[in-house]
Amino acid sequence: MDVGFIEKTIKQVMAVLGEARCYPRTGRTAPGLGITPDNATIASLIDHTLLKPDATARQIETLCHEALQYGFASVCVNSVYVPLVAAILKDKPPKVCAVVGFPLGAALPQVKTYEAQEALRHGASEIDMVLHIGALKNRDYVALHDDISDVALVAHDHDALCKVIIETALLTEEEKIIACQIIKVAGADFVKTSTGFAEVGATVADIALLRQIAGEGVGIKAAGGIHDFATAQMLRQAGANRLGTHAGVKIARQESGETDDKISIAYY
Amino acid sequence: MDVGFIEKTIKQVMAVLGEARCYPRTGRTAPGLGITPDNATIASLIDHTLLKPDATARQIETLCHEALQYGFASVCVNSVYVPLVAAILKDKPPKVCAVVGFPLGAALPQVKTYEAQEALRHGASEIDMVLHIGALKNRDYVALHDDISDVALVAHDHDALCKVIIETALLTEEEKIIACQIIKVAGADFVKTSTGFAEVGATVADIALLRQIAGEGVGIKAAGGIHDFATAQMLRQAGANRLGTHAGVKIARQESGETDDKISIAYY
Repeated sequence: MDVGFIEKTIKQVMAVLGEARCYPRTGRTAPGLGITPDNATIASLIDHTLLKPDATARQIETLCHEALQYGFASVCVNSVYVPLVAAILKDKPPKVCAVVGFPLGAALPQVKTYEAQEALRHGASEIDMVLHIGALKNRDYVALHDDISDVALVAHDHDALCKVIIETALLTEEEKIIACQIIKVAGADFVKTSTGFAEVGATVADIALLRQIAGEGVGIKAAGGIHDFATAQMLRQAGANRLGTHAGVKIARQESGETDDKISIAYY
Repeated sequence: MDVGFIEKTIKQVMAVLGEARCYPRTGRTAPGLGITPDNATIASLIDHTLLKPDATARQIETLCHEALQYGFASVCVNSVYVPLVAAILKDKPPKVCAVVGFPLGAALPQVKTYEAQEALRHGASEIDMVLHIGALKNRDYVALHDDISDVALVAHDHDALCKVIIETALLTEEEKIIACQIIKVAGADFVKTSTGFAEVGATVADIALLRQIAGEGVGIKAAGGIHDFATAQMLRQAGANRLGTHAGVKIARQESGETDDKISIAYY
């Protein structure tokens, strides 16, 4: 992407936010969170994810046990299942990741904040919120900033991470830059590409662009359409340091050298 | 559908709810709401709907003006746009309809109740909530009942309607019967077939089945895949007395006898 265009776009965003006194928040992000050491396994970067509306308690339990077995970063679920996941993973390494305002991002801002609060109160340690894409299209940068900033503050109060989903499939290149810059200023910890509910998920080009804007202070989570180790590896090389997928078991087995015919995939 | 199977299924549901003291709520539904007079126009039954995540304020404004022009029942939006719609439709006939827990139905129950409260506080007069499909699959009828009942209570406190989306595309025939019966007992005002985000929307067979369970005390809203007057008419004849669609303008023009080539459809 043309560096001049990126710089010009960021300048415009900052002018609007500056006038509204949305000053850049200082680095809350823990060291090593924005980027991840090269020797980390792909499995350790995976948010093991099940978000379909008819997911059952039994399927969520299986998801948790797989996360424990394969050493995934987190289990990512809708907020209704946070109490169940938190109970299973209590005092275990995988984080409890709850989506908020998901997947449309078009709930009232205070509803997103409340959903984050309730998920955190029930044991979530990571929040994946969806920004209001309409606000981005309306060029209402201040509303967009505050929506993100409010959830990030609540998350950080609980020592939890806040990732922000921008749904790249619905955005222009300019809007991707704007969204990423606002997320950075609003103090969130990760930019996440996709909900997995749009027609297109994470692409190498988008990850590279987002990493270019985010720098090393903010993490990049690739999500949507990650079905195998090769794809996961490409996205990581492009700059992603977290991967949202429901194919974690398959990917982890491929990473550890199992051949494809030995792998039975549990698709939900 | 076999009447014996329906009766047996309803009996099983009522045994579970009865044991948990979820007694049937008495008829809050206003007369004439469960069913609608035959002389009502199709246009007057339409919830004029725009729920896509990248909907802009400008598109929502157009939606409101179309609802006024064509005499639609309501304008149906994500909760973030309730304040805008309520401002435009203040003291005007179309209702302000907000979706809640949309479209997955998998937010924590208290988050749905809060979203309903906030939407009502900002001017919503109808709430379209999504039930927790996972709870239905888990056969946790009490959780399902309470999730619906809590939102219905909040809506009724504000003299608003509560419609409950069951997402027929993801349910077995038995689950459709169970969902409809629980909605009836929980005191909601309408059963709604679909979010419009699943692969299949309203079908004539589903509407007929739901009307069979609901009787005349609860309304039936068909939604998803209603793109023309003929479809709208068929669903109405099968028992629907509210129609959720984004093709309201086209349908209203077809109803009033305009030929197709005069109709320019505003798809969003």
